[in-house]
Amino acid sequence: MEISHIEHIGIAVADLEKAIEFYENVLGLKCYRIEEVEDQKVKTAFFQVGQTKIELLESTAPDGPIAKYIEKKGEGMHHLAFSVRNIEKQLEEVSSKGVQLIDSKPRKGAEGLDIAFLHPKSTKGVLVEFCEKR
Amino acid sequence: MEISHIEHIGIAVADLEKAIEFYENVLGLKCYRIEEVEDQKVKTAFFQVGQTKIELLESTAPDGPIAKYIEKKGEGMHHLAFSVRNIEKQLEEVSSKGVQLIDSKPRKGAEGLDIAFLHPKSTKGVLVEFCEKR
Repeated sequence: MEISHIEHIGIAVADLEKAIEFYENVLGLKCYRIEEVEDQKVKTAFFQVGQTKIELLESTAPDGPIAKYIEKKGEGMHHLAFSVRNIEKQLEEVSSKGVQLIDSKPRKGAEGLDIAFLHPKSTKGVLVEFCEKR
Repeated sequence: MEISHIEHIGIAVADLEKAIEFYENVLGLKCYRIEEVEDQKVKTAFFQVGQTKIELLESTAPDGPIAKYIEKKGEGMHHLAFSVRNIEKQLEEVSSKGVQLIDSKPRKGAEGLDIAFLHPKSTKGVLVEFCEKR
């Protein structure tokens, strides 16, 4: 496994506009990009904080994963994304060690990255994402 | 507000030993420190991932904040800690903008840092920590 750094932290929010206002006006961070990921039924906003990004996620549909997450657990940190090289190899490796994969093969995520999620049932409760910038 | 980077991400775990095993053997990260913070009723384990640390937290008491968190929400990401300068000034600033503080003055946290928490009710659901290394 070759994790270089935390690529981003995904945070589920009920209202993207109000959340951006909080991160900008209270925490002094700067939103540099807003992007809709139709596949995931989310609208996202990105902030760079040192080496790591914060990705705010608002659901665009009542049946989307972020809407369901907020319904169950409330707003808050949703996933933890590690930057890796050779994502296919890393997925094979963690799978061989008993980790259940949500995505057995990488797919395209926000910002054009190749991404794949691991199931939180086999990662001590954290929804882990692997990301690779090709 | 002057946030330089994400100092650490706190993750609530039920069993610290098993969680360390997962982060080391599956994710390939290296635990460099284990520390008990009596004040917070937690035992913590630290991993460096690029610029940011992962801090695993196991409760040392059934009435500790981490035990209560897991009871309510399950294992998972618990708090997000930003590295700041002049922590007292930052607390004043966010307070003046309507953020409810858990700690109105900094106190000593793990690794000798001065720390203070903001209430998740006023930070869009995320338990935010400010940290300063003096």
